[in-house]
Amino acid sequence: MSENAHYGLLKGKKGIVFGPLDESSIGWQIAVHAHREGASIAISNVAAAMRFGNTDELSALCGNAPVIVCDASKNEDVDSCFGELKEKLGKIDFIVHSIGMSQNIRKQLPYEELNYEWFMRTLDVSGLSLHRLVSYALKNDVLNDGASVLALSYIASQRNYWTYSDMGDAKSLLESIVRSYGPRLARRGIRINTISQSPTYTKAGSGIPGFEKMFEYSDLMSPLGNASAVECAEYAMTILSDLSRKVTMQNLFHDGGYSSMGATIPMIKLAHEVLNDKELAERVGLEDFKPAK
Amino acid sequence: MSENAHYGLLKGKKGIVFGPLDESSIGWQIAVHAHREGASIAISNVAAAMRFGNTDELSALCGNAPVIVCDASKNEDVDSCFGELKEKLGKIDFIVHSIGMSQNIRKQLPYEELNYEWFMRTLDVSGLSLHRLVSYALKNDVLNDGASVLALSYIASQRNYWTYSDMGDAKSLLESIVRSYGPRLARRGIRINTISQSPTYTKAGSGIPGFEKMFEYSDLMSPLGNASAVECAEYAMTILSDLSRKVTMQNLFHDGGYSSMGATIPMIKLAHEVLNDKELAERVGLEDFKPAK
Amino acid sequence: MSENAHYGLLKGKKGIVFGPLDESSIGWQIAVHAHREGASIAISNVAAAMRFGNTDELSALCGNAPVIVCDASKNEDVDSCFGELKEKLGKIDFIVHSIGMSQNIRKQLPYEELNYEWFMRTLDVSGLSLHRLVSYALKNDVLNDGASVLALSYIASQRNYWTYSDMGDAKSLLESIVRSYGPRLARRGIRINTISQSPTYTKAGSGIPGFEKMFEYSDLMSPLGNASAVECAEYAMTILSDLSRKVTMQNLFHDGGYSSMGATIPMIKLAHEVLNDKELAERVGLEDFKPAK
Amino acid sequence: MSENAHYGLLKGKKGIVFGPLDESSIGWQIAVHAHREGASIAISNVAAAMRFGNTDELSALCGNAPVIVCDASKNEDVDSCFGELKEKLGKIDFIVHSIGMSQNIRKQLPYEELNYEWFMRTLDVSGLSLHRLVSYALKNDVLNDGASVLALSYIASQRNYWTYSDMGDAKSLLESIVRSYGPRLARRGIRINTISQSPTYTKAGSGIPGFEKMFEYSDLMSPLGNASAVECAEYAMTILSDLSRKVTMQNLFHDGGYSSMGATIPMIKLAHEVLNDKELAERVGLEDFKPAK
Repeated sequence: MSENAHYGLLKGKKGIVFGPLDESSIGWQIAVHAHREGASIAISNVAAAMRFGNTDELSALCGNAPVIVCDASKNEDVDSCFGELKEKLGKIDFIVHSIGMSQNIRKQLPYEELNYEWFMRTLDVSGLSLHRLVSYALKNDVLNDGASVLALSYIASQRNYWTYSDMGDAKSLLESIVRSYGPRLARRGIRINTISQSPTYTKAGSGIPGFEKMFEYSDLMSPLGNASAVECAEYAMTILSDLSRKVTMQNLFHDGGYSSMGATIPMIKLAHEVLNDKELAERVGLEDFKPAK
Repeated sequence: MSENAHYGLLKGKKGIVFGPLDESSIGWQIAVHAHREGASIAISNVAAAMRFGNTDELSALCGNAPVIVCDASKNEDVDSCFGELKEKLGKIDFIVHSIGMSQNIRKQLPYEELNYEWFMRTLDVSGLSLHRLVSYALKNDVLNDGASVLALSYIASQRNYWTYSDMGDAKSLLESIVRSYGPRLARRGIRINTISQSPTYTKAGSGIPGFEKMFEYSDLMSPLGNASAVECAEYAMTILSDLSRKVTMQNLFHDGGYSSMGATIPMIKLAHEVLNDKELAERVGLEDFKPAK
Repeated sequence: MSENAHYGLLKGKKGIVFGPLDESSIGWQIAVHAHREGASIAISNVAAAMRFGNTDELSALCGNAPVIVCDASKNEDVDSCFGELKEKLGKIDFIVHSIGMSQNIRKQLPYEELNYEWFMRTLDVSGLSLHRLVSYALKNDVLNDGASVLALSYIASQRNYWTYSDMGDAKSLLESIVRSYGPRLARRGIRINTISQSPTYTKAGSGIPGFEKMFEYSDLMSPLGNASAVECAEYAMTILSDLSRKVTMQNLFHDGGYSSMGATIPMIKLAHEVLNDKELAERVGLEDFKPAK
Repeated sequence: MSENAHYGLLKGKKGIVFGPLDESSIGWQIAVHAHREGASIAISNVAAAMRFGNTDELSALCGNAPVIVCDASKNEDVDSCFGELKEKLGKIDFIVHSIGMSQNIRKQLPYEELNYEWFMRTLDVSGLSLHRLVSYALKNDVLNDGASVLALSYIASQRNYWTYSDMGDAKSLLESIVRSYGPRLARRGIRINTISQSPTYTKAGSGIPGFEKMFEYSDLMSPLGNASAVECAEYAMTILSDLSRKVTMQNLFHDGGYSSMGATIPMIKLAHEVLNDKELAERVGLEDFKPAK
């Protein structure tokens, strides 16, 4: 689709997007696309992100969307956020959760030596925060029947990526919270899902050590190549729209087919090369990762 | 969405739908919705279905869609079908596969006593037929780059349903063919997926012995209730549209959350009731299904 | 196998079992079976469990196994536990983690109203504790090459069980930690897995409100019936033995086939009964769980 | 374990192994290990394999095990096989299925151009054959209550491997047949499972074009390295023994952790290298596999 195509998929709907930082963010692109598809939206982020990012610019791009400062790891913040939201926008039809942070990754602690306070903080900010958003949205009676709750995940919740560390564990928790909350919300026709997105060049993503190489690897292993932030936002429109009213408690892979790949021919041939080329083997550090025989 | 809402999601696109029988069919609803979303479509089915069903009515509903007789289990039929399609419609942007049949189920043979010729025929008609459609579409150079191939599946591919018999095995095969074909098609930006749909009241579905009870059970276990044929068609529009260009090799559950459910409170309580109520236990035939201790 | 059969599967091995409370505990049975299969073992639990349970009896049953008091949610406790273990037993070949606790479940808080401090505590005690055990075992250099680490999980990590609440989320986290740790440990030939066990009549399990009904439901839905604590211990022997040296990062279902079941005939028939019997429907509270239409 | 360790795990049991060709075969190793663990066994293969392989040698290694010629794709062969087996050995406690063949792979037909007769034959020989073995074992009343049925699978049933072609589809079918048959067999306490084994250097495996490179790739991606045929046989002993009586309808990965891996550091670095080294990129044919942009 041309970047400018739009269909009115969210005409008459209202919603809030948590976590957009700058135009590299998936949340940013979702906000922009939701606006384009006809929704009235609000934007929320932590105070620090407001300073680092370009929230005002995003607000302007989205029809002067209200901006609400909120730390999704704090009960009182989330509570008052939904109070404020209700005043400014009325009841809403979707919540988008695009929040994650790991101090253990930033400090590059090996998985054997994780700091447990930081680990708990990773789980709180990246996982429990979704529970908190939904619970306080319910308490403030902000959600319309039939609403759609959407969070962003990554396949590290299900398979091992050496450098993704405790964020993989947090994404597992996030996906489980989606399943745990599902039937509760369903009684009011509300659905809740995650999109499991390709590695994406965002400020958050690129903060992970070795992110660029993970991006390249994933791109090589994905039959359609990595999905971009813009493509993720386009796909998210379908999950926020009425066309997916019966999709809930799902983890939806938006990854160019990566999740269903075993191996590609080039990667298989590369394995052969590295086993027969000592210099290449040294360059990629093969010996350090071989199991004891 | 109101039944009449439409968004122009398939504006300018062309496609073909295999297997619509009557308005209870998912394929029928997909055809109608695709037309409504702006696509030019063709319809295909076996000769017998043309007689039993209302294909002419469907064609009329879809802007006088060309109707092509084709048995998807016959190479020559499929080959000439795509030749005819190309003449009538030109190159296309999507293929929808909604084909399945099991003689073993019709004749209610217990799984231990399946007729192997019929088993092979089930696999051929319900599984290989998808491979055949794609291969002859490629051979006839009918598919545009970026096209979307979609087939309909059911969760019996992954879990056991006593009465679904060899159709569960055929759906496993179908989902595997999707994964096997994925990277081949991806080189031209073509994607291929299945929707794993709730049990649906169609002529095909209701032919399965005990179908009605399976439908009821599934409805009770699905937080949002079973998804209907119309809802499935609405969801299918998102997978045929450009908004899901990076989704491929996936099995997408459209089932009201059923696939992520362990147990619901009523079903758990029913289990308790039946264990403490001999008359109820007898009515549901509990003894026949208990494992040897 | 007769309860008394044994094979010498763990002859010459040493290990520690965390969490056995009384003879209903899976951990208790694993300890007893490991001793019977030839292993020298140690036992560990929190101080309170020592008082409530029969740890001394278990120690006696296991050849006067050393008993080490340890709260697996406290770094210093776990650190000194492995120090003490090394002194008393030397280096070991297996660790068994059978630890879990949720205050939210005990207090029967609905999932919408979880106490977040308790939620974090559930994750810490039931999930992070495994990470802590492995990390301090490594720091104290207690593990032999080729050791086996085993934790107990439940299918609520992957599907929704209304009453299992935040323990389902904790089990998701636990299974993810297993995958995250796997390749790190593999460099020394150490493997790490979970067994996903049927609901089991243990003191811990039976503390979950409505546990008995969940047990009954699961038994009805499992082709071979629920697996018992003794059977789980028998199966655990194979995972601790040298016969599974190449199995790692897996979640192994030991559940009588439950995890692969879609529906059983009696459950399907029960669904039909309840929809046609108002009195029965009321008894199981059907109306409260129907989605809004 | 030393190659010679044994535990008497199958003492007093009887069983049959289908498909052992020579000592590279997994079936061969399972037969040898089952004998060592105390079982009385029979061996079966097609007539051609009897000529090519060393069946007599295997029979001698297994205490003069009866050898029964049988083509598992022919009803009458399988029927008379179990008749003969019952005469020679009496009722049995396990069946091992290690059978697979694809003419499409042998002839290296691209997936787009599969020969459909061969595809059907692949499904029949590699998938339906398991159904046939179980059905005729039941008809001949050869299986004891509590028996264990085991077949060998490969992860290509669930993810895409370019060169594994229609064998991936056949393995999907095989795993589904296991789930479909499970509850039927469970009524007599009989269990049925697959082991999903690492690529293994067998005559069958090495016939797949590019097998060696797939083996190397898998070895690099497996934290514990590929599992060997001998290790697979050791693991199989646990599934045939009474220690796993409650494990059924499962696909058990025996693969050094491969199935839970997302990426390893060396593979990620290799991806980076190949993207920055034109000569290397050409050697591995990178351009041919890139998606259209």
